[in-house]
Amino acid sequence: MKNKLMRAALLASLTVNAALAQQAKPPSAADSDPVKLGWMVGSPPPPEKVVQMATGGTVRFPLTRWSYSNIRQLVPTTNVSRGGGSVSVLPRAERADIDGISFKVAGTGETMTWAQSLEANYTDGIVVLHKGRVVYERYLGVLKPQGQHIAMSVTKSFFGTIGAMLVADGTLNENALASTHVPELKATGFGDATLRQLLDMTTGIKYSENYADPKAEIWAHVRSGNVIPRPPGYDGPKSFYEFLQTVQKEGEHGQAFAYKTVNTDALGWVIRRATGKSVGENLQERIWSKLGAEQDAYFMVDTVGNEFAGGGLNASLRDMARFGEMMRLDGHYNGQQIVPKSVVADIRQGGDKGRFAKAGYTTIAGWSYRNMWWVSHNEHGAYAARGVHGQVIYIDPKAEMVIARFASHPVAGNAAIDPTSLPAYAALAEHLMK
Amino acid sequence: MKNKLMRAALLASLTVNAALAQQAKPPSAADSDPVKLGWMVGSPPPPEKVVQMATGGTVRFPLTRWSYSNIRQLVPTTNVSRGGGSVSVLPRAERADIDGISFKVAGTGETMTWAQSLEANYTDGIVVLHKGRVVYERYLGVLKPQGQHIAMSVTKSFFGTIGAMLVADGTLNENALASTHVPELKATGFGDATLRQLLDMTTGIKYSENYADPKAEIWAHVRSGNVIPRPPGYDGPKSFYEFLQTVQKEGEHGQAFAYKTVNTDALGWVIRRATGKSVGENLQERIWSKLGAEQDAYFMVDTVGNEFAGGGLNASLRDMARFGEMMRLDGHYNGQQIVPKSVVADIRQGGDKGRFAKAGYTTIAGWSYRNMWWVSHNEHGAYAARGVHGQVIYIDPKAEMVIARFASHPVAGNAAIDPTSLPAYAALAEHLMK
Repeated sequence: MKNKLMRAALLASLTVNAALAQQAKPPSAADSDPVKLGWMVGSPPPPEKVVQMATGGTVRFPLTRWSYSNIRQLVPTTNVSRGGGSVSVLPRAERADIDGISFKVAGTGETMTWAQSLEANYTDGIVVLHKGRVVYERYLGVLKPQGQHIAMSVTKSFFGTIGAMLVADGTLNENALASTHVPELKATGFGDATLRQLLDMTTGIKYSENYADPKAEIWAHVRSGNVIPRPPGYDGPKSFYEFLQTVQKEGEHGQAFAYKTVNTDALGWVIRRATGKSVGENLQERIWSKLGAEQDAYFMVDTVGNEFAGGGLNASLRDMARFGEMMRLDGHYNGQQIVPKSVVADIRQGGDKGRFAKAGYTTIAGWSYRNMWWVSHNEHGAYAARGVHGQVIYIDPKAEMVIARFASHPVAGNAAIDPTSLPAYAALAEHLMK
Repeated sequence: MKNKLMRAALLASLTVNAALAQQAKPPSAADSDPVKLGWMVGSPPPPEKVVQMATGGTVRFPLTRWSYSNIRQLVPTTNVSRGGGSVSVLPRAERADIDGISFKVAGTGETMTWAQSLEANYTDGIVVLHKGRVVYERYLGVLKPQGQHIAMSVTKSFFGTIGAMLVADGTLNENALASTHVPELKATGFGDATLRQLLDMTTGIKYSENYADPKAEIWAHVRSGNVIPRPPGYDGPKSFYEFLQTVQKEGEHGQAFAYKTVNTDALGWVIRRATGKSVGENLQERIWSKLGAEQDAYFMVDTVGNEFAGGGLNASLRDMARFGEMMRLDGHYNGQQIVPKSVVADIRQGGDKGRFAKAGYTTIAGWSYRNMWWVSHNEHGAYAARGVHGQVIYIDPKAEMVIARFASHPVAGNAAIDPTSLPAYAALAEHLMK
């Protein structure tokens, strides 16, 4: 009974959260500071300070301000080892003149400083590299340099990159159907989709990513993988694989960009089948162990051992910056070519702007999407990996700048985050180029 | 319904397992080889190859041959960072003459070789250091050098050591009552127990560690911390803290050694309260970050963030060997004094042999227990950290030898493991001293 009440409260809170995301003004970063709120402090912590999966710890703001830096304490995970090599040195050249940089918030025209933007975006940590040197590094909330934070959809850019690497080395044919590798997808909405359509998210499938709608397919998706708790009597898909087999078609493939997380998990399944290795092992062997990462990374994992390719990666901030720097350097980093130059060039060139425009994004009009990267097509040739609560790896080739940021913004959607982020990045780039 | 059947099957299998431990001859190491059995292989794995917490993955042999090397894939965990320093070098001087060493199995007098002893003990991995150099290293089953394996009660020796360090630096008074630090223990069986009694496990409490008895308190203990699944309608303690408050007194403190895991969790609570840090943070700051460990370690953790101090540590084998080598070198390792020399000396000197004898151990008669270490009092002054399925750190000062072993023996108890282990260690020590 108590359990039922708890679940009812959770479902209510999810709805409230969704509503809050759309309407109310959530508590500020300062008012939701997880250190100040004291989550999980004490032996034992007071009951009202306990963060658990069962009570919405992985989704409910402001619990997320703590849990996004502590995901493995709530759910099963798999490890992505940094390998046995040396840590690649990130030279430091910190600058005191960054916090004061000012910019105009997109839409409102209000002036804001860089320092203020950290608060505005519920930043948990941020590292800025300029010409490969750390010029700025801050940790807020409960994140530590040696800790890991959930990257959410930043994860996708890792698997888009790996997918493109497998196309480049001939393991995959981008024009082949995903179902040639995964016959289980034949009878689904993915049945006649090509790998290229997965990689660029131009599939026509019935899948809503509207976090404010409790009936959106994204919720069924993450429920299948134990990313959020299941309601009592749950009888739905019990793994990512099972969910993928329920996806239906809607519209035509190849016509328009439509951001749907499930594409990455479908790609993950293809990568598993084509390589005979898990997505985590692929990441470890192809990228993570070569970066000279400081820390292991880890994945949220479903009950049959399948990592959440669409959003389950957790990593340290500096290692995210290393990955971005590797991309900025055309795939060459830590003394080796990690990603082929042609793959990076393909990403930088971007996807089809016409198809992207159909998605109707207002804060990033004129951008495109390629190999699961967001490409700005601005004068600096900037491109980014983006997570739904403000996680980002932002690469500005012209300014020789890489920004890695983790955040736990209350609103699930970059439309709320871009106005205080993209102009800040642009202002910082200009400042560093002076 | 399906769920109920599954749980019934699990409970039945636990009972079968317990029975099997006592009577039947379990499958051999070769027949239970997790690689051969193919646990969790495939995308997805076939249903009969899936290892999950809910179906007994953390306790049911031969699933344990896979799960002991993959605990975090089944349960929530907390990380113990290796820190940012360099890895301490373990020089290699591997010898080919070890596998052929023969010894007599205790009790039977049967002759066995070192190589055969690996199989006999369901070894998942073993490292032998001689004078600080790796002379022997093997990985069997699914364990890898960069992977972690559950140490089970080897964990206790870490916290006994930390407890003794806190006594040595004056943070704790060994003669004080545990309940002075944790008032919640006042009304329990621990109410009038001293820290020294906890450290040496001479408390008189009602707590059976007989894994073959489904009603033994050890099961309620680990169930409280989510180490094993809970039956439907479970209404018992929901955290280690809650379980600790149910422990009753039985007999008198200080009279006899009685191995009861709950003592270590009580000590863990005292350490948390006395230091204001979790047991994991204490391990990280005082030992792990100083060893030059290759890998992070991690803990099984209950739902309120309390690590399982009695058995929840998972670590790499080489790092276990480093810890052993540090102890062998009187606490000085990787360029620094990590554990005070006096603490190591206190452990090596051992506990009260008379009180130990009362426990009636047949395979280790004449030993004692001090600061949660097992002390042989043999001619080599050997002492050990011991886990219930064959995990061990065995330190032989005279032979300048350290053995670190992970195993997943089907029988929960060293009485079944010692006969093919202790004589093997002795024979190896003699061989290395030649």
